[in-house]
Amino acid sequence: MRIDCLQYANWSEKIFRQMREGGLDAVQVTIAYHENFRETVLNLEKWNRWFEKYPDLIMKGLSAADVDKAHESGRTAVFFGFQNPSPIEDDIGLVEILHTLGARFMQLSYNNQSLLATGCYEAEDPGITRMGKQVIREMNRVGLVADMSHSADRSTIEAAELSSRPVVITHANPFEWAPALRNKKDAVIRAVTENGGMLGFSIYPHHLKDKSGCTLASFCEMVAETAKRYGAEHFGIGSDLCQDQPDSVVEWMRMGRWSKEVDYGEGSAAKPGFPPMPEWFRDNRDFGNIETGLRRAGLNEAEVGGIMGGNWHRFFAENFGPTGG
Amino acid sequence: MRIDCLQYANWSEKIFRQMREGGLDAVQVTIAYHENFRETVLNLEKWNRWFEKYPDLIMKGLSAADVDKAHESGRTAVFFGFQNPSPIEDDIGLVEILHTLGARFMQLSYNNQSLLATGCYEAEDPGITRMGKQVIREMNRVGLVADMSHSADRSTIEAAELSSRPVVITHANPFEWAPALRNKKDAVIRAVTENGGMLGFSIYPHHLKDKSGCTLASFCEMVAETAKRYGAEHFGIGSDLCQDQPDSVVEWMRMGRWSKEVDYGEGSAAKPGFPPMPEWFRDNRDFGNIETGLRRAGLNEAEVGGIMGGNWHRFFAENFGPTGG
Repeated sequence: MRIDCLQYANWSEKIFRQMREGGLDAVQVTIAYHENFRETVLNLEKWNRWFEKYPDLIMKGLSAADVDKAHESGRTAVFFGFQNPSPIEDDIGLVEILHTLGARFMQLSYNNQSLLATGCYEAEDPGITRMGKQVIREMNRVGLVADMSHSADRSTIEAAELSSRPVVITHANPFEWAPALRNKKDAVIRAVTENGGMLGFSIYPHHLKDKSGCTLASFCEMVAETAKRYGAEHFGIGSDLCQDQPDSVVEWMRMGRWSKEVDYGEGSAAKPGFPPMPEWFRDNRDFGNIETGLRRAGLNEAEVGGIMGGNWHRFFAENFGPTGG
Repeated sequence: MRIDCLQYANWSEKIFRQMREGGLDAVQVTIAYHENFRETVLNLEKWNRWFEKYPDLIMKGLSAADVDKAHESGRTAVFFGFQNPSPIEDDIGLVEILHTLGARFMQLSYNNQSLLATGCYEAEDPGITRMGKQVIREMNRVGLVADMSHSADRSTIEAAELSSRPVVITHANPFEWAPALRNKKDAVIRAVTENGGMLGFSIYPHHLKDKSGCTLASFCEMVAETAKRYGAEHFGIGSDLCQDQPDSVVEWMRMGRWSKEVDYGEGSAAKPGFPPMPEWFRDNRDFGNIETGLRRAGLNEAEVGGIMGGNWHRFFAENFGPTGG
C-alpha cells in the first residue's frame, strides 16, 4: 500500500502512468491555492474530464475503501484537498458542499492570515479566529480534515486542541532536522500527534536538510528518528511533488492575487523557481527508493508499511465520513 | 409507496410533518427557477441545514434505494431538480458537478428560450440547440434526467428522440382534457412515453379542467383514460404543489430577472397570484384522496400502486446513475 498525501503536479497522462509505475495506490492532490469557490469548481470539472479520459489509470477517491478498490484494479485513487480555505469564501455552508464534491483536506491557512487561522509567514499569530472555530466544528461534522501544513505554530496547536477529530500536517518535516520556516517544531508535532493526527514527510527541497542535495540516508534516518520519538503510526509521506510545473505556478502559489510585489516564499531572488528534486526522488516512479531507504534506516516491516501508506489508509478510514457515521 | 415528482413549497417543519401524515416516501423539490450556479448552491446549503435539523422527518434522496430507506424509517426522501438549466450557466462541466451535489432532474427550458431548448410560451420553437445536444448527451452519461414540462412541443419531441435515455414531463396533464398551454398534446405524450419516459399528473389548478373547481372524479377519470391510452406504467404524480408561497414567489417563477414588465404566465391581471388548490388536495396530507379516487375510477391495484409511486420508483432506479453503472 503506497499513499502520497500531497502532490501538486501539472497533471498529464505521463504523470498518471508514472504513478502506476511507482505503485502509488492513492494521492492527495491540491486543487486550490487561492481559488475562490467557482474557480475551485472549475478545477473539479477538469478532474472529472481526466477521470472520464483515463479510467484505467486513475479514479476519484472519497474513502479508504476507494484506496483498496484502486489497489485491486491497478489504478491510483485521487483525493482532493485545498492549501487554503479560499474555496469556502466566507460561507460555512460551502464546507459540506465541497465535501460532497470530494474535498477531504483543507488547510486553515496558507502562509498568510486567513479568515480562519494564521499562516506561518505572518509576524503575529493570534490563533484560531471566530469563524475558524465554527468552521473546524463543521469540518469535524462532515469529515473534512484540517491540514495545518502552512499554518503558524499557535494556530496549529489551538486547532489540534479545538478540533474534536485529529488534525494533520500533510507535508512538512521536523524543524530540528531542517530549520525551515515551514518545518515543524517539537511542540507542534506533539500537539498534532497526541490528538491522533498525522504528519506526512515532505521531499520538497526547501524542507530538506541540504535542500536538493539531501541524501536518501539522511532523509530516512530523520524519518526513523521522528517515528521513534512520536510513534511510527503517526507518520506517512506527503512528498509535495510539483512535477512539470512552470515557474509561473510557484508565483501563483506564493502570491495569488494578494500582492502586487514579488514574494519569494521559501525561495529567494537568486532562486525564485521550483528547486530541483533530490536525485533519489525525481518523481512518482521513485517510491521504491524511499521504501528501501526506510528499511536500511532500521525500521521494521510494519513500520515501513505504515509510513509508506498504511497509516494514511487507517487515517482516511477514520476521518473522511460524518461524525459517528 | 407514494412519490410526488414535483413540489415547490415554502418549506417548513409543518410541511415536512404533513408529508409524513400523507405517507409521502419521496418528493422531487424544485431548487432552481432562474438561479445561477452559485445561487443554486446556496439553495442546496439551505437543504443541508434542513436535513441536519429534521433528520427524523426528511433525508437527502439520491437513488431509488433511498426511497426504500426513507419508507422503512418513516421519512420522506427529498430529490432535487431544476425547472430551468440556469444552474449550469454556459458550462457543460456543471452537469456532473450538480449531479454529484444531488440534482436528478433538470428542465431544458422554462417557458422561455434557454441555451438548450425552447419554452412553451415562445412564438417559435427551433428545437434543441447545439449546446442542448451536447448537454443532453452529458446528462445521459451522468444520470441527470431531462424534464420537458415547460418546454415547447418540437423541443420536447426532439429531446425524446435525441436522448439515449428516457426524458420526462414531471408535471402536466393532457391538453385534450384541459387545453392549457402547459398541458401536453397527444404527439408529445406519445414521444415521451414511447421513449420509456414518464409523465406526472399535475394538480396545479391552471392545469386542471375547471381549475380550482375541478372534481376528484374528473381528475381520476382523466388519469384512468390516459393510463389506458399510453400504458399505466408511464404515469405518476407531479402535483406542482406550491404550498405557503407568497405571491412574490410566483413573480420570481414567471419573471426571474428576464423582464422589466409583468408577465402573468398562466395567471392573468385579474388573478395574478397562486390559485387555490382543489378541496380534495389541499396539501401533502391528501394523497389518500387521490388513491381512493383512482380506485373508484376503475384502475386495478397494480395500476394504482404504480401511479401513486411505484412507476417513479422504477424510473428512479433505472435513470439516476451513470450509463451502464
